[in-house]
Amino acid sequence: MLQDMLENVRRKAPLIHNITNYVTVNDCANILLACGASPIMSDDMGEVEEITSLCAGLNINIGTLNQRTLPAMLAAGKKANALGHPVVLDPVGAGASTLRTASARRLLENIRFTVIRGNISEIRALASGAVSTRGVDADGAYSVTEENLNRAVEEIRAFSRETGAVIAVTGAIDIVTDGERAFCIRNGRPEMSRITGTGCQLSAMTAAYAAANPGQALTAAAAAVCAMGLCGEMAMARMTPLDGNASYRNYIIDAVYHLTPQELERGAKYELR
Amino acid sequence: MLQDMLENVRRKAPLIHNITNYVTVNDCANILLACGASPIMSDDMGEVEEITSLCAGLNINIGTLNQRTLPAMLAAGKKANALGHPVVLDPVGAGASTLRTASARRLLENIRFTVIRGNISEIRALASGAVSTRGVDADGAYSVTEENLNRAVEEIRAFSRETGAVIAVTGAIDIVTDGERAFCIRNGRPEMSRITGTGCQLSAMTAAYAAANPGQALTAAAAAVCAMGLCGEMAMARMTPLDGNASYRNYIIDAVYHLTPQELERGAKYELR
Amino acid sequence: MLQDMLENVRRKAPLIHNITNYVTVNDCANILLACGASPIMSDDMGEVEEITSLCAGLNINIGTLNQRTLPAMLAAGKKANALGHPVVLDPVGAGASTLRTASARRLLENIRFTVIRGNISEIRALASGAVSTRGVDADGAYSVTEENLNRAVEEIRAFSRETGAVIAVTGAIDIVTDGERAFCIRNGRPEMSRITGTGCQLSAMTAAYAAANPGQALTAAAAAVCAMGLCGEMAMARMTPLDGNASYRNYIIDAVYHLTPQELERGAKYELR
Repeated sequence: MLQDMLENVRRKAPLIHNITNYVTVNDCANILLACGASPIMSDDMGEVEEITSLCAGLNINIGTLNQRTLPAMLAAGKKANALGHPVVLDPVGAGASTLRTASARRLLENIRFTVIRGNISEIRALASGAVSTRGVDADGAYSVTEENLNRAVEEIRAFSRETGAVIAVTGAIDIVTDGERAFCIRNGRPEMSRITGTGCQLSAMTAAYAAANPGQALTAAAAAVCAMGLCGEMAMARMTPLDGNASYRNYIIDAVYHLTPQELERGAKYELR
Repeated sequence: MLQDMLENVRRKAPLIHNITNYVTVNDCANILLACGASPIMSDDMGEVEEITSLCAGLNINIGTLNQRTLPAMLAAGKKANALGHPVVLDPVGAGASTLRTASARRLLENIRFTVIRGNISEIRALASGAVSTRGVDADGAYSVTEENLNRAVEEIRAFSRETGAVIAVTGAIDIVTDGERAFCIRNGRPEMSRITGTGCQLSAMTAAYAAANPGQALTAAAAAVCAMGLCGEMAMARMTPLDGNASYRNYIIDAVYHLTPQELERGAKYELR
Repeated sequence: MLQDMLENVRRKAPLIHNITNYVTVNDCANILLACGASPIMSDDMGEVEEITSLCAGLNINIGTLNQRTLPAMLAAGKKANALGHPVVLDPVGAGASTLRTASARRLLENIRFTVIRGNISEIRALASGAVSTRGVDADGAYSVTEENLNRAVEEIRAFSRETGAVIAVTGAIDIVTDGERAFCIRNGRPEMSRITGTGCQLSAMTAAYAAANPGQALTAAAAAVCAMGLCGEMAMARMTPLDGNASYRNYIIDAVYHLTPQELERGAKYELR
């Protein structure tokens, strides 16, 4: 099942429009190329509608949000909706400032998102309006554990029904749900949180998977989440004693480059709840 | 002949002013340092004329073009022209949107470029005004092949005469011409297109080669194109089975760092037409 | 002494707000994660005060300065001052343009900086108002040597007294002073200047060290400078013949990731003057 998702990315090589932050943008472009897709970055009001029309999917990421690019996000998202292109939202830092929370909500009110991917703090901030995030990393107080997993799944399922989007919450255990079925995914490594932008990269890759698999947003998002986690595991197996987070970043993208559909199918660790 | 071009970059260590996109800017800075030049990035109207006056060359790249930086590109380009500094244009995504095509043409109308470097789609969009680009990569329908090489050379030669700039078109076969002589270059590896920004990096490096070799824009641009392709080959020879596009990116910059003038002279694969 | 500084970074994991350039921002985020801190990048007036309030320290870097972010730097700096958070200034390219020199001075007039870190040209431009910088690298004519070290220490000490900030000048010999005691540090490698952004990375890391060690700005800044230089040495020891500046960049961040407080204490090469 998951392997078809990656096969379609490789076969269709979807062009993905990214309006994203300047911190991790290079890694987002390289991971899109690694998985078999193609990136274009464009954030000016004067061209985003045209650019997104050329593409197969749109990835909106609000890291380093600013007042110049927010209108471009709205315009591109509406255009992508009108064209029936999948749109992914990464609400980086939602909850950390009023601007980010309010902007993310404004995006939600104006754009139908296919997938929303964030950590549990960000997703909770969107769902509840609460403001409290530790930087752009999952707040320890809010992490999803085996103990609170059922409760977390219900909470995220409810948010998925409310928004009509597949919600992908990543952390120690990842949850991906369309409001009905929920994938609980146990791929990945804790060391991935010591690299900036693994979440941003996953969101970009999720847009590629969704674009290459129309009408299958849940499975596509789950496949992207499994792929990222699995590549984190494969990259960790390659680490030498002197390698740290900079080498690990490269090895993860390298692993995405080489990941085969069969490896993804075999290596994905998930259960459906 | 080509070796002198690199020797001069190493000896003069030209400072290159870059107004460039935020996707690949870090790699552009590192490749400039790798080849022996020195980078400065500055895009604000309030300082670009002063900054470019301190430099030996200017590199204008319209990836992630926005309405704030376009006036800065125009001002810096005019200043560099007035000072007789070489100016390189990388029309990233020309043809993909009206904004990019129109902005690139506006730059062409207001600035005398020493070298314009792009893929065949971008160069054709500039030459003809046609809008059709697949992201920022060469559109397959337009690629230069052995079969259409003579026709492509004539077309690019004509655009060079029209603009007065050396035109460098990169792809499976690279063409560099000043409207008279044309280098057809067969260095490089197809895997380079799986890394974001090898074109941007080459444009930055071309500005360094042109700045270090005044009055020799054709040979300087051809040398830079050969150097990039050759380093792509050398870096590929170093790849291990687990290495993917992230490691390849690093290895190419590493190869530029170590490339000697003699290796460039011996490894360059070109014919003159 | 220095080892306590790093131990506190690891133990407290301070969240650092960065308003920084788009050239080296990814490396700044990764080095903060490598040393044990956590980064957040935010530069919009609409949120910087809120963001900096969540953080333990602020790092202001004027590379790729523009008129949109300067007011955000001023607002965030004042807020951090009001909250008693340490604030670091990296005056990238001060002296290279009137905008940069004037903006850096305006920041100095409005914000009490805990540490100012730059190369000798930048610091002299701030101290004297002189305009003359070679890009963002130390101008050869101005470098600190064994011969002029005493004079340089006096000059920097005077600037520290004038500003009330710890001044960290990095180059072949680094000087870190609070106007009284001065650390003269001989860690580091000349090859570090062939990587873009080692200075920016050090400034970000200095903010983390200062945030984790309140009231000990001098020792914290000296520890960060020693750590960066020492990691440059350790990374160099790992270089293979084909490795160049791209791999070296990764190895330095990797070394920061693995550096232990004991290694820092033993490897730091400094004298107090």
